Amino acid sequence: MTRVDLRAIEEAHERIRGRIHRTPVLRCASLDAMTGAEIYFKCENFQKTGSFKIRGAANAIFSLSEEEVARGVVTPSSGNHGAAVACAAAWRGAKAWIVMPKNAPSVKCRAVEAYGGTIRNCEPTISARREMAAEVQAETGSVMIHPYDDDRIIAGQATAAKELLEDVPELDVVLAPVSGGGLLSGTCLGAKGLSATVRVFGCEPEKADDAFRSLKSGELQGLESSDTIADGLRASLAPRTFAILREHVDGILLVSEEEIKSAMRLVWERMKIVVEPSSSIALAPLLNKANRAAIEERLGARGNRLKIGVIFSGGNVEMG
Amino acid sequence: MTRVDLRAIEEAHERIRGRIHRTPVLRCASLDAMTGAEIYFKCENFQKTGSFKIRGAANAIFSLSEEEVARGVVTPSSGNHGAAVACAAAWRGAKAWIVMPKNAPSVKCRAVEAYGGTIRNCEPTISARREMAAEVQAETGSVMIHPYDDDRIIAGQATAAKELLEDVPELDVVLAPVSGGGLLSGTCLGAKGLSATVRVFGCEPEKADDAFRSLKSGELQGLESSDTIADGLRASLAPRTFAILREHVDGILLVSEEEIKSAMRLVWERMKIVVEPSSSIALAPLLNKANRAAIEERLGARGNRLKIGVIFSGGNVEMG
Repeated sequence: MTRVDLRAIEEAHERIRGRIHRTPVLRCASLDAMTGAEIYFKCENFQKTGSFKIRGAANAIFSLSEEEVARGVVTPSSGNHGAAVACAAAWRGAKAWIVMPKNAPSVKCRAVEAYGGTIRNCEPTISARREMAAEVQAETGSVMIHPYDDDRIIAGQATAAKELLEDVPELDVVLAPVSGGGLLSGTCLGAKGLSATVRVFGCEPEKADDAFRSLKSGELQGLESSDTIADGLRASLAPRTFAILREHVDGILLVSEEEIKSAMRLVWERMKIVVEPSSSIALAPLLNKANRAAIEERLGARGNRLKIGVIFSGGNVEMG
Repeated sequence: MTRVDLRAIEEAHERIRGRIHRTPVLRCASLDAMTGAEIYFKCENFQKTGSFKIRGAANAIFSLSEEEVARGVVTPSSGNHGAAVACAAAWRGAKAWIVMPKNAPSVKCRAVEAYGGTIRNCEPTISARREMAAEVQAETGSVMIHPYDDDRIIAGQATAAKELLEDVPELDVVLAPVSGGGLLSGTCLGAKGLSATVRVFGCEPEKADDAFRSLKSGELQGLESSDTIADGLRASLAPRTFAILREHVDGILLVSEEEIKSAMRLVWERMKIVVEPSSSIALAPLLNKANRAAIEERLGARGNRLKIGVIFSGGNVEMG
């Protein structure tokens, strides 16, 4: 179904490489000690616009024809994708309309505006967001840049895992957050494109567990709305991302709100870097016995300390 | 008066180099744009124990004789120095008693305990802290490791500026926080030891302005207590640090509580790194017209965009 293969990911990387940061991979001795693993943190919180979303947005927008650029772009977004689309659109000289739920953090709204995007607010449900995006598209004639139901977006997001595996080829496991599944699909395709043995798990809030339910039941499950603190993870899978995950992901690990918060506090305190809740969720399973056991079981008895990549997706969090 | 020359700093660096991190020097495009300068951030928030204090503490403690090590060490500290002494003492197998004010952030108390130090609480005044430290010293026979009134401490703290000037030799200015003056004295000696043209300014809370008043009046001024949010900057100069600053510092810039907080928020939001208020104070003057003008006036008309080093002293802040 998808046409996102390693070649598409390499082309995406070529297209965006000069515009984005190659983010650092950091270590933390005390988190290694607490989890019994060797953790390699891919720090997309240091990425342009403060999250990985600029990878997909830039790949999509720099793939548009001149005629499409002239029409402008529109997207429904919980925040980070909106900022990324506004930023990449500005790079290419295109107008950008961003449809955001009313409960998006104000730091994310300010970012969209700072990049010159036009915000349209909607109710905080997935259907309201989709409807208003369609409305704006009809009204303006702009091109839809969907946050994840788009092969160009998935190929762009895959470049984060590609860089991580280039830097640390011997990883046993990669953990990434899952919401609509763009990053997780890309992580599966990017990581497994470079390593025959790596396993990839998605990390999902218990309060927005549609990917977990979809993969368990084998049928795409809905999620109308969620108030999880991980505000970037309130979307649900599309048929396209569901199909990729069914084929490639090794499991979905559920994380409670408390675990998300305490992992975030740990990262701030021990690593002295700012990550948002939608990022810290990818560390949280390693601090939970049941989730650690689930990872180890899926890997079989590899014996040694596991080398685990954790994708910190972004760092855009409201300051007190 | 002081015997801290470039050779003492080099010896300190040799002594501690294998035990501490050579912290990174980071840039931030949006802070450059906001200040009109080229800023080079020396990130001691990533240092072992979360602050630069391990430099001085390790230099002092690894300078002790075996007989002194057997007696253990004692220090009065607002937190970061205490954690650093506890950590360096543990490395050397010495006992450590840390006298801390009751209002020290609990994250700093937990750190002292995690390194195996023994905390003795006192009233949050400078005299109470000094008295209790003397009491503990008398009671235990331990060796006093003063936070700043000690040449070994000053030589250790100087290694941060030494590394910064090694990495960016063409700096016009270095900004560092000032409290008891250990870091600022070391910064003057380290930076000016490596560069004949660099200027060094101290950044001090308006609410704890004894260094400003002392240098202005030419007489050492007291400070009994302060509740500035910059909890690491509630100490006052000693005769030793006052003498060094009188000779070497190019000015003291005062910063309001609001400016400290808003600079901290900016660093968290734009750089995605965690710094404590006692760190962000060293950026704050660059966001204030009068302070920027004071720096430029002292430098004369150098014309070009200034290259400015900012020492982020630590990242130990209470999480919400």
